[in-house]
Amino acid sequence: MPPVIAFIGKPDSGKTTLLEKLIPELRHRGYRIGTIKHHVHTFEMDKPGKDTWRHKQAGASTVALSSPTGLGIIRDVDEDLTLEELVGRYYGDIDLVITEGYKRLTLPKIEVFRSALHEEPLPGRDETWVAMVSDTAGAADLPCFPLDDVMGLADFLESRFIKPFPKQKTSLLVNGQPVQLNAFVESFLRQAITGMTCSLKGCQDPREIIITIRQGPPE
Amino acid sequence: MPPVIAFIGKPDSGKTTLLEKLIPELRHRGYRIGTIKHHVHTFEMDKPGKDTWRHKQAGASTVALSSPTGLGIIRDVDEDLTLEELVGRYYGDIDLVITEGYKRLTLPKIEVFRSALHEEPLPGRDETWVAMVSDTAGAADLPCFPLDDVMGLADFLESRFIKPFPKQKTSLLVNGQPVQLNAFVESFLRQAITGMTCSLKGCQDPREIIITIRQGPPE
Repeated sequence: MPPVIAFIGKPDSGKTTLLEKLIPELRHRGYRIGTIKHHVHTFEMDKPGKDTWRHKQAGASTVALSSPTGLGIIRDVDEDLTLEELVGRYYGDIDLVITEGYKRLTLPKIEVFRSALHEEPLPGRDETWVAMVSDTAGAADLPCFPLDDVMGLADFLESRFIKPFPKQKTSLLVNGQPVQLNAFVESFLRQAITGMTCSLKGCQDPREIIITIRQGPPE
Repeated sequence: MPPVIAFIGKPDSGKTTLLEKLIPELRHRGYRIGTIKHHVHTFEMDKPGKDTWRHKQAGASTVALSSPTGLGIIRDVDEDLTLEELVGRYYGDIDLVITEGYKRLTLPKIEVFRSALHEEPLPGRDETWVAMVSDTAGAADLPCFPLDDVMGLADFLESRFIKPFPKQKTSLLVNGQPVQLNAFVESFLRQAITGMTCSLKGCQDPREIIITIRQGPPE
C-alpha cells in the first residue's frame, strides 16, 4: 500500500490551493500522486443529464466512462469504504496518496493554518501531526513551512514519506482490509502464485497478476 | 467475468431512454447492473471547480471522492482500457454489464432502431446481433421487442445472459487480460490461495481475497 498523508486545516485555510501547487511539483519529480476527498453526505460527481448520470439514476450499481486518456467510475457502496480499502483497491500504482480531510484517522497529518484568517490552529493536536504550513512561525515542536515554500514541503514529503516506502510487489486484501506481509510471506506468496499462473495459456510473461476470490457457500 | 451486452443504434435512436426503463426492471429482479460508456475523445466527468477536479487539473493521476453511499474515481490511463480489463477490474460484483457503444467489438449486441427516425437499421449486421428493439416488426431472423416491451426484453436478458453465467468465485487477470479458468484450475487456485492466506494473522474467515502481484526487475 502506498504511503498516505492527510492535509487538514480549518475551512478556507487554503488546503486545495496548496495542493494545486504541491501536486505539480511532486509530479515533476517523477512521482504518481493520488488524492482522496471524503464527503460525509451523498455526493454527485457526474454531470446531470449525461448518459452515465442517467444510467446511475436508473439504478446501475457501477457506471463507467472510458476514453483513451481517462477512466471515470462511479459506484454504490454499502457503507463508507475504509481508507485502507480504498487505497488498497484503487491506488496500487501510486507513489503518494494525499487526502483532504480524514482528520480523525491516525494518519500522519500536515495542518494548513493561516493566522490571517483564524486565531488558532485546529484543536487536539497530537503526535500524528508531522508538519505545519503557515503564515506564522508555527509550533516550535514541528517543522513549519511558509505557505509559498512548495519546494521545501515537497522535499519533506519525498524524504519522509515517498522514498522510505518503495512500491510493494505484492499486495493482499482480505475482506477489504490490507494484510501486512513480511519479506518471507511476500516472496512465498508471489513466487507460488506466479508459478501457478504462468503455466496457464497466455500467462507466460506475467508483469501483473490480479486474483480475486469470493467464497460462496460451502460446496 | 460477468456477461456483457452492447446496446447499439444510430444517434438519437433512444438507447439511453430504453436503458432508463430496463435497468430499474433488472434491478427490481434482484440483479446488480453495471454500465459502460465509451468516449473516443478526452472527457470531463467531474464538475469544474470542485476539489477533486482541482486535484486532477493539478496533475494527480487518480482522484477519488468517497462517501457512505458512493464512490467516484477518476484516473489517467495510458491507453484505452480494453473492455475485458475494465470489466475484469471493476465489475466483479456485477451480474450484467451493459455497454452503450463498443459497436466494433464482437460482443452480443441489441440494436435499437426507430423507423420513425431512420430509414434503415445500422449497416453490417452479423451474427453478433442477438435482438432488435424497434417500432417495426424488425428482421424476421432476430427476436424483436417493441420499444415499450421492457418486461420482454428483461426476460430475454435474464434467460440468455444472466442466469446461464453464475458469478465466478475466482477471477484471474494477467497483464490486464482476464484468463479463462476451467473448473479444475479454478478450484485448484482458489483452494491453494485460500489455504495460503487464511493462516495469516487476521485472515481466518476470508470471504473475499484480492492479491495483486507486480513483477519488478529480476532479483
